[in-house]
Amino acid sequence: MSVPAGSEARIPVESHLKRRVSIFGPGLIGGSIALTLRGRCPGTVISIWGRNAGLLDEITRRGLADTVHTNAEEAVQGADLSIFCTPVGIMPGLAVTIAPHLSEHAIVTDAGSVKAGVVEKLTSILGDRFLGGHPMAGSERSGLAAARADLFEGAPCILTPLPTTPAWTLETVSLFWSSLGSQVTAMSPEAHDRLVARLSHLPHAIAFALVNLVASSLPPASSLLAGGSFRDGTRVAASDPALWTGILSENRLEVAMAIREMSEILNSLARILEKNDTAAILDFLKRAGEHRPHLPLPYPDEIL
Amino acid sequence: MSVPAGSEARIPVESHLKRRVSIFGPGLIGGSIALTLRGRCPGTVISIWGRNAGLLDEITRRGLADTVHTNAEEAVQGADLSIFCTPVGIMPGLAVTIAPHLSEHAIVTDAGSVKAGVVEKLTSILGDRFLGGHPMAGSERSGLAAARADLFEGAPCILTPLPTTPAWTLETVSLFWSSLGSQVTAMSPEAHDRLVARLSHLPHAIAFALVNLVASSLPPASSLLAGGSFRDGTRVAASDPALWTGILSENRLEVAMAIREMSEILNSLARILEKNDTAAILDFLKRAGEHRPHLPLPYPDEIL
Repeated sequence: MSVPAGSEARIPVESHLKRRVSIFGPGLIGGSIALTLRGRCPGTVISIWGRNAGLLDEITRRGLADTVHTNAEEAVQGADLSIFCTPVGIMPGLAVTIAPHLSEHAIVTDAGSVKAGVVEKLTSILGDRFLGGHPMAGSERSGLAAARADLFEGAPCILTPLPTTPAWTLETVSLFWSSLGSQVTAMSPEAHDRLVARLSHLPHAIAFALVNLVASSLPPASSLLAGGSFRDGTRVAASDPALWTGILSENRLEVAMAIREMSEILNSLARILEKNDTAAILDFLKRAGEHRPHLPLPYPDEIL
Repeated sequence: MSVPAGSEARIPVESHLKRRVSIFGPGLIGGSIALTLRGRCPGTVISIWGRNAGLLDEITRRGLADTVHTNAEEAVQGADLSIFCTPVGIMPGLAVTIAPHLSEHAIVTDAGSVKAGVVEKLTSILGDRFLGGHPMAGSERSGLAAARADLFEGAPCILTPLPTTPAWTLETVSLFWSSLGSQVTAMSPEAHDRLVARLSHLPHAIAFALVNLVASSLPPASSLLAGGSFRDGTRVAASDPALWTGILSENRLEVAMAIREMSEILNSLARILEKNDTAAILDFLKRAGEHRPHLPLPYPDEIL
């Protein structure tokens, strides 16, 4: 693989990577990948597939892709790495379409928020060339307009290899995300889904539920009096409902389990409050305080 | 009341206010009141009462008070307005101590997060000169070190008059908080407690519970993978456990009721997830999205 003269200093990692990247879905994640590649890995040839011709025109105008396509077969021609950044529901159809047109060495990955079902379906179509991934970055805003060149900077990215995944595939996709600024971790698809059910999907479910509780139990103007704890705790309730219906539905069993665990913990707190057991209340709050400071704090504000 | 020459332009509101203010408790709220008065109402004479002599020395060094006191009787001498910024549990004792030493026209208010119990106790001691208040501003950090001159800027402040509260008392305390930058609203103590149970105490309870759920159900390093929805939703779990045990305990019946409502709403979401009723999930998320954008967004980051 050749590296353009003069670009070595800027792309120390990317020189290990394949250079033709196809991005499927030019939304928040796909658009941010293109923006970041343009800034950090200027040698990469980018093709972008999307269904909205107007959006593809905008991508061309902004120089975010070398080629744009509404035809998936064309978009994948010659790609070393293809990334599905679409809703998870349409990934299997895309995989079936592109499978016959992939180069022999081509790797396919995705950026979906749920992994077990997606990995099973896409592996059955694409074989070991598919490796699931989940950049833990996003925003309550969506679409290309919300894309940012620093979206992945310092954000976790979880890859979900199977026992059959070739080491080279894991290494390539890992270097790809590292080159975008992500902190890459690997675990099984099932461990991922259990984890994100509690660290991402549950906090989203809580945010939606908390807004609905206030909307149904207080006069309309009350929320104008809400302070930061409510505002921060419900920020992601403004997330795209259709997108999150897909995510919660795809991971529904783990999310439902996490919600029921949360509900039990909340009820245990309600019980000690009703008994005014201040020692137990203090213990409950202290345990949380001891764990909360361990969380990483330097992420940009909008990362999910 | 005289206004110092040349200061009229800076204190258009404060010229209506009594000029000697006694602050009880030099923590986050009390310290921020002093800082803000110094900046916006330089003619105000400030006395501060506290139990920690070292902290009072710091207040003197920083010029935040004209006089500092460990003796409450002395602190209240000549005060037009006294403000209790201590934990609610010690307010009745302070009220009993200062009551015989208050000027005839003196007004007493507080900054406690719960109102019905406090208003009942303090009114029985101080009579109609007491008016409950709650600046909806704070931080997960506490103490004088966290105090800020802009803490109240644009933040709601709820006053809780009784039918017997003189209009002049309500007007004076209202102008005081307005002069600090707050948006003042009035309602009954009971309406306040019901409201903040849902808009502040419940989001705090959820934050503590969510951290405890993750700490008990995932491996220790997992929270390093948490993104913004978890981080924002649990920010206030780092709040002072003793302070919040007092607040939650004081408002325990309303908070317990709000927690049980939340638990039911969460369980209803778990049920539609288990049935994979995507139309119902979408409806649940859409309702939240429709209400969330109505919330005010321009508050500083740390306001509770």
